[in-house]
Amino acid sequence: MALSRVLKPARTAPPLPQSDFDPGVNNNNPQNDTSIPTCPFCHIASTYPPYDPSSPPAASPTTLLNPDATSPQPSTFIVLSTKDLVAFLDIMPLSFGHILLCTRSHREKLTDVSPLEAGELGRYLRVLSAAVSRVTGVQDWNVVQNNGAAAAQVVPHMHFHVIPRPELKDKGRERFTSTMFGRGQREDLDEEEAEVLAERIRQMVKVVVEEEEKVEAKTQNAKL
Amino acid sequence: MALSRVLKPARTAPPLPQSDFDPGVNNNNPQNDTSIPTCPFCHIASTYPPYDPSSPPAASPTTLLNPDATSPQPSTFIVLSTKDLVAFLDIMPLSFGHILLCTRSHREKLTDVSPLEAGELGRYLRVLSAAVSRVTGVQDWNVVQNNGAAAAQVVPHMHFHVIPRPELKDKGRERFTSTMFGRGQREDLDEEEAEVLAERIRQMVKVVVEEEEKVEAKTQNAKL
Repeated sequence: MALSRVLKPARTAPPLPQSDFDPGVNNNNPQNDTSIPTCPFCHIASTYPPYDPSSPPAASPTTLLNPDATSPQPSTFIVLSTKDLVAFLDIMPLSFGHILLCTRSHREKLTDVSPLEAGELGRYLRVLSAAVSRVTGVQDWNVVQNNGAAAAQVVPHMHFHVIPRPELKDKGRERFTSTMFGRGQREDLDEEEAEVLAERIRQMVKVVVEEEEKVEAKTQNAKL
Repeated sequence: MALSRVLKPARTAPPLPQSDFDPGVNNNNPQNDTSIPTCPFCHIASTYPPYDPSSPPAASPTTLLNPDATSPQPSTFIVLSTKDLVAFLDIMPLSFGHILLCTRSHREKLTDVSPLEAGELGRYLRVLSAAVSRVTGVQDWNVVQNNGAAAAQVVPHMHFHVIPRPELKDKGRERFTSTMFGRGQREDLDEEEAEVLAERIRQMVKVVVEEEEKVEAKTQNAKL
C-alpha cells in the first residue's frame, strides 16, 4: 500500500461528504419532516405511529397496529416503533427472524443520523438482537449495515439488518457467503407465519426493555 | 416455512441464552474486571488507558499513547479509547481504513453488553464512520458485527467492523462477496502507513465529536 493514500486527504481541507450529518438541517426536531415520498421505509415510518415498547399492541392481525391507514404493500410486520426508530421483518428474509431497524426520519447513511438517533440505534440493536435470538432460539446472528452502492446498500434509507444464523450443518460456508447482502437465496415472507413471529418479537422486546429498566433502577439505587 | 418454527419457542419458557446480558453480574461497574487473559481485545483494552476523544494524544509514533506498557504484538493502532470502548485498526484489513470497535470490558456477544455500552457503541459507530470516511475519502462502507461461530465471529469479544468500500471498478461483485467476513484476500497492515492513518482518524474523531457538541449546545439553547 502506498503512503500517499494516507497523505492525500491532508493536502486539502477534510472532505465533508454530502451525506454527512448536517447540524444545521436536521435532527431532534419532529417538525422537520424529512420523509421522501418514494422511499419504502419512509412510507412504513409514516404509516405506523410510535408506541411504548413496554406496552406493545398485542394485536393480531398486525394490521390492528394501525387499522385506519392503508397498509404498505407488501404487508409490513412491525416489531418496534418509537419516536426515533422503526423495526420490522425483512420482506425477503435471508433467514427466519431477519429484521431491519431504521430511523423514523429519512437518513441516507449512518453518518446522516443525529447523535441522539445513533445512541438509540445502538441501544435497540442490543434489545432487538436479544428478542430475535430468544424468539427464534437461534444463538448466533449477524448485524449488518451497508452505506452506499459500493457497500451493497439497496434502499437509500439507513437500516441495520439483524440476521439469525442457524448452524449451517449441511449448507456449508459457500452458501453462508452467498446469502449475505441479499445476493443469495431469499424466500418471500410467509404472511401467516410473519404475523405470529412479529407479535412474539414485540412481546419479547417488552421483556428485554423491562429487564433494562430493572438494571437501571438497581444502578440508581446503588448510587444513592 | 412451517408455522411450527414460530410456535416452537412457546412450548417452553423463553430461552435465555447463556450469552445474554445478566443484570446481576456485569456492567457499569469498573470494579468488575471482566478481562480474559487469553483474549487479544482484552489485552489491547488493558494496555491502552482511556483518553478524552476531544483531546487525542497527537503522538507519533503511536507507542507514545502508552510508552510504559509492552505493546501487544502485533502492534496496535488505537483510534478511540474511552471509559467504555476501544477502537483500533484491523491488523488484517479487508480495505484501507478497516477498523474494529469493541467494548473495553469482555463481552462475548452484542446481547452481553450493558444498555449504557450499547448506546455508546451506537454513538461511536456514527462518529468513527464519519472519521474513517473523511480520512480515507471513501464514501461507502459496511458496518458488520458477528455473533457466534455460525455467524463467522472469530474473536469471542464483541466487536463491530467498519469497512470502507472503494468503488470496485475492476474487481466485480465476486470479490466483494468473498472479502466479507475475512474469508477473502486480506493484506497485512503496513505499520508505517498504519501509524499515520491512526493518528489521522484520532484527529478526525476529535473534529466529529466537537461538531456533535456544537449541535448539542444549539439544541439546548433552542430549548431555553
